Amino acid sequence: MFEFAKYHGAGNDFIMIEDLDARLVLEPATVAALCDRRFGVGADGVIRVTRAQDADFYMDYRNADGTADRMCGNGIRCVGKLVHDRGLTHNTELTVGTPDGVKHLTLRLEAGRVTAVTVDMGLPAFERSAVPMRGPADETFLMQPVEAGGRLFTGTALYMGNPHLVLFLDEDPAGVPVVSIGSELELDELFPERTNVEFVRVHAARIDARVWERGVGETMACGTGACGIVAAANEVGLCAPKAEVHFPGGVLEVERSAQGPVFLTGPAECVFEGRVEENELVRRGTA
Amino acid sequence: MFEFAKYHGAGNDFIMIEDLDARLVLEPATVAALCDRRFGVGADGVIRVTRAQDADFYMDYRNADGTADRMCGNGIRCVGKLVHDRGLTHNTELTVGTPDGVKHLTLRLEAGRVTAVTVDMGLPAFERSAVPMRGPADETFLMQPVEAGGRLFTGTALYMGNPHLVLFLDEDPAGVPVVSIGSELELDELFPERTNVEFVRVHAARIDARVWERGVGETMACGTGACGIVAAANEVGLCAPKAEVHFPGGVLEVERSAQGPVFLTGPAECVFEGRVEENELVRRGTA
Repeated sequence: MFEFAKYHGAGNDFIMIEDLDARLVLEPATVAALCDRRFGVGADGVIRVTRAQDADFYMDYRNADGTADRMCGNGIRCVGKLVHDRGLTHNTELTVGTPDGVKHLTLRLEAGRVTAVTVDMGLPAFERSAVPMRGPADETFLMQPVEAGGRLFTGTALYMGNPHLVLFLDEDPAGVPVVSIGSELELDELFPERTNVEFVRVHAARIDARVWERGVGETMACGTGACGIVAAANEVGLCAPKAEVHFPGGVLEVERSAQGPVFLTGPAECVFEGRVEENELVRRGTA
Repeated sequence: MFEFAKYHGAGNDFIMIEDLDARLVLEPATVAALCDRRFGVGADGVIRVTRAQDADFYMDYRNADGTADRMCGNGIRCVGKLVHDRGLTHNTELTVGTPDGVKHLTLRLEAGRVTAVTVDMGLPAFERSAVPMRGPADETFLMQPVEAGGRLFTGTALYMGNPHLVLFLDEDPAGVPVVSIGSELELDELFPERTNVEFVRVHAARIDARVWERGVGETMACGTGACGIVAAANEVGLCAPKAEVHFPGGVLEVERSAQGPVFLTGPAECVFEGRVEENELVRRGTA
C-alpha cells in the first residue's frame, strides 16, 4: 500500500508520490496500471519525489506507458507545490534535480499556499544533434516542410528538455486531427528518440496550441511544449520573447530571457489525496 | 472535505461515498467536477450509499454530468462490495433501495472479500409506454429499422431499469462509430427521456457489445445494458435466456429467469481510497 496525491498543472495531471528516502521501486507495469483512467487512478504520468544530493529535491518522472522521461514542465511545478504545501520546505526558491539536470523554481504564494510556479527550463537547442534528429548534425530544422496525414505543414524542431516538433498553422488547432498526425510524427524515422508534436497558431503574444506527447498521447497542456513553442516562434521571428500559450487545459506564460534560458510560469493544483494497494492494481492490470 | 473510494465493475467506474446518515448534499456541479477525468477524480458516476427504511442500504446514483439516474447495474454491485468489505453488513444476501425500487443482491466471496455480485434486475418491459418511447402506448418496438449516421440498423427498445435501444449488428461492434451514432440516438425525439444505446453482435451464448450511456457517453460496460441486451435478444429469438455479454471492460453474465426477472452477475473491484476538498474542486470546476 502506498499513499499518493493527484495534482494537475493546466489539466496535465499526475499521480504524485512522496518518497523522500527513495524506498519505493516503481516498475513500468505499476506506472501503467496506476495511470489507466478506468481500472487505475488515471493520470498522464507518475512523479516520485525524493531527496537529492545536489538539489533540494529530485523528480523521478514516468510517462503513462511506464517509460521514464527526462523532464516535465507541468509536473515539476506540481513538485514545487507539493514540497511547499506539505511543509517539506519553507523556501520559495528551490532546486529540483531531474535527469535533464537541476532546475530552479520560484513559488508564488497566496495565503501561504502555492498557486503558481516559475521554472527555469534551461536553453533551447536547435541543432539536429541536440534534438536529436537525423540529418547533418550541426544544421537546424527551422520552418521546413513536414508531411503527415496527407497534409503539408511548416515545422521547426528543437530540444527543450525533450524533443519537440512545432507545427505552425494558419488555422485554429481545435480543428486539427491531432491524434492521427501526432501519433504518425512521433514515430517518424527522422526522430530516433521519438518526438513531441505541437500544433500552434501564433497571433502576437497569444498562441493557441494543442500538443501530442510522446509516450502519452494528446494532453491538456505541456510545459516543455509551451517553452518549445515560444522559443521556436521567437527563433523564426513569429513572436516576441514573451508570450502566453493557450492550451485546452489552461494558460502557460513563457519568457525567453536575453541570457538564453526559458522561464515557464503556470498553475499547480492538488485535486485529492489517496492510497492504493499496489499489488492488487498490478495483478488486475496484467490479468 | 469528504472521503471516497474509487470502484469499478467491468471497467464502469464510480466514486463511492459512504454517507450512512445521509448528511452529504451532492450538488450536480459537485458531481460533474468530481467526475472530470483531468481536473477532478474521474469516473462514470458518483454513488452515495446511505441507510434505508425499506432495505439494508440505499444507492443514490448520479451520472457524470450531475443528473440523477434510477438504477445502475454495475454500480449496485460496487455497493454490495463496499458494504460487505467495510463490515457494514456480514450478510451475503442484501437488499438495496434505488429510485427504481428495492433490488436483491447475492454476494460471492473469496477469502472473506466480495469478488462478484448477482443482482435481481427486475422485469424487462417492451411496451412503448414503459420504455418510454413515442408511438402507440401498448405496442412494442421489436426488430424495427433504425436510421442513424447515414446507416440502417435493426433495433429493439425496452425498459430495463432505464430506457435501452439495442441495435443488432452482423459485424464486430469494435468497428462501429459508437460516439456519433450513440449521441445522435440518445437525443432522438422517439425517446422523450433519452435512451441508452447498445451495439451488439450475438453468436449463441456469447454476445459482443459496446454501449452508449445517456448522460455519460461510451462506457467500458453497462449492467442494465447487459440485461437489456440479453432480454431483447432472447425476446426476439436470437439467444437463449442465459448469455455472457463481452464489453470492452469485461464480461457480465445475464440470466432471464423463467419467472421473468433478469439476474446480472459480474465483478466489483475497489481501486483506491481518497479524500477531496469539495469546495476547492467545485470552485475550480466552475471558475
